Amino acid sequence: LKKTQYLGERRIIDIIQRHLDPMPKMPVPFGDDVSAFEAGNGRLIVLKTDMLVDKTDVPPGMSPWQAARKAVVMNVSDFAAKGVKPIAALVALGLPKRFTKKDIEEIGSGLNAGAHEYGTYIIGGDTGEASDLVIAVSLFGIAAKDALMLRSGAKPGDVVATTGLFGKTSAGLKILVDDLKAPEKIRETLVDSVLMPTARLREGLTLAETRAVSASIDSSDGLAWSLHEIARSSRVGMRIDLLPTAKECETFAVRNDLDSMALTLYGGEEYELVLTVEPSRWKEAQKAVKNVGGQLLKIGKVTSEKGVVLEVGAKQVPIEARGYEHFKT
Amino acid sequence: LKKTQYLGERRIIDIIQRHLDPMPKMPVPFGDDVSAFEAGNGRLIVLKTDMLVDKTDVPPGMSPWQAARKAVVMNVSDFAAKGVKPIAALVALGLPKRFTKKDIEEIGSGLNAGAHEYGTYIIGGDTGEASDLVIAVSLFGIAAKDALMLRSGAKPGDVVATTGLFGKTSAGLKILVDDLKAPEKIRETLVDSVLMPTARLREGLTLAETRAVSASIDSSDGLAWSLHEIARSSRVGMRIDLLPTAKECETFAVRNDLDSMALTLYGGEEYELVLTVEPSRWKEAQKAVKNVGGQLLKIGKVTSEKGVVLEVGAKQVPIEARGYEHFKT
Repeated sequence: LKKTQYLGERRIIDIIQRHLDPMPKMPVPFGDDVSAFEAGNGRLIVLKTDMLVDKTDVPPGMSPWQAARKAVVMNVSDFAAKGVKPIAALVALGLPKRFTKKDIEEIGSGLNAGAHEYGTYIIGGDTGEASDLVIAVSLFGIAAKDALMLRSGAKPGDVVATTGLFGKTSAGLKILVDDLKAPEKIRETLVDSVLMPTARLREGLTLAETRAVSASIDSSDGLAWSLHEIARSSRVGMRIDLLPTAKECETFAVRNDLDSMALTLYGGEEYELVLTVEPSRWKEAQKAVKNVGGQLLKIGKVTSEKGVVLEVGAKQVPIEARGYEHFKT
Repeated sequence: LKKTQYLGERRIIDIIQRHLDPMPKMPVPFGDDVSAFEAGNGRLIVLKTDMLVDKTDVPPGMSPWQAARKAVVMNVSDFAAKGVKPIAALVALGLPKRFTKKDIEEIGSGLNAGAHEYGTYIIGGDTGEASDLVIAVSLFGIAAKDALMLRSGAKPGDVVATTGLFGKTSAGLKILVDDLKAPEKIRETLVDSVLMPTARLREGLTLAETRAVSASIDSSDGLAWSLHEIARSSRVGMRIDLLPTAKECETFAVRNDLDSMALTLYGGEEYELVLTVEPSRWKEAQKAVKNVGGQLLKIGKVTSEKGVVLEVGAKQVPIEARGYEHFKT
């Protein structure tokens, strides 16, 4: 019999989904970043749950306060990718017996900090005993149906863009988990990208208002995976001509003799948005993001050919459809 | 430093709550069975999350299918107690590595069965690796604000009632966990009450329509605890004159030389509704429940004195404020 570790997360989700009756008229398909319910008057009630488990999602050096905050940020990031403002959150909390009163206080305070940063509130939850620290956050929000940015609307010719640079979390994880070294002046930046992630909520909300985005996803499973998810859901391909590598990642790669391209593409736990924009609306989209203090980086183009490729000089290198996946580490 | 096992579930919830900023104008206070958000036009968006963890919530003999179904039923029961129809559910699923493809199929199918029984759908979720089987279900629904049955509205003179008899799950758990014996002809009923719990959704929905209920709670932490919760939230007392003991529980108690009163009062994992009804509306409430195939049993009266007491002949025995609590087993 096949055990979960050989099946992998995405196969497991497939198996479960096949046993579920779909709700009639589901406005958002299974497998997108959020779920939704048609509330009438062109409005959707948007829901999301994402679970943090310490053994897979909490690296060494991350405090209970940071873990709790991250559990909120993970969920907010999915709302950001869809352009939905989170209204309220619920938390189901599994706590190991060894946890102390101080740990629990940190968790309460970390949850609140995460909610507060994004203008939302924890309004309820449940707690019980578990072997791992488990923090399952559920988010709720309301969105205009035509503003929701799904994964599936990318069209050939659209601009492929991101809200920031990649590779810092891959490097940070290698420092925290594998004890790799980094020059002192960039070490904190790399480690902080893992311990104190931020969701691109302002960027996502303003982009949803422009209606210029044709497809969007967050990059929690890595840049490569995110590009492939949009390509797969939209039945298109992509040509990437500018790899958005953070300079700290570059420095770290040189110092440790690692491939910065791999760190950029195949990381995870990164919460930038990856999206596609109608070419005629590009400047407007870029300006909207700039107005809220963010940035929108053009990294490539949507194509009608299958596959996601990286242009390196005159050569085209395929970007593989892999990224972070639970049960496969 | 105090560890979770000495703090207990309710103390842990207190600690966390003290760190949370309350959402302005919360229509349902922290600590009731559900959370809610004011949606305008007298309507509430109602949310709930409740987490099943195998080590505390899945007794020996319960299959993955039954565990998954129970995770849905637990949540639906809280909606039933508030009189809210569940519209959709999300599931955050933690799976141990030892689980097989067959286990996962059972879980998918059990989740769907639970949702289907109560006319709702699983519309999304998340999965990851965990040491325990963890199933955190989130429910969402919409309710008329004046129909929501809180814990806090009981008034002296109100009738105290339940939707059924108690003690079967206490007995069933003693059979499954402690290997106690039961006469063959009642064994299945007792064990099934644990393995295949049912939520009193039809009862809760029709009662909410009558507007005759002043306070309501489900009995997942036991009858005694539920009575005390209504008493505490409503700042009243209760006099119970009819202990609603199931006859199978009585037979089991005699066979094993146990106290059937304790089995009835201090069990848990029971999903009857415990509620209070304005006396002038009692017959109407009882009739409404009968019309949907259920029953409403009068077990006592709300009083203005503090405390919850049981009348046994001419004597009054205090009912203790204890019940099932995580971290304290």
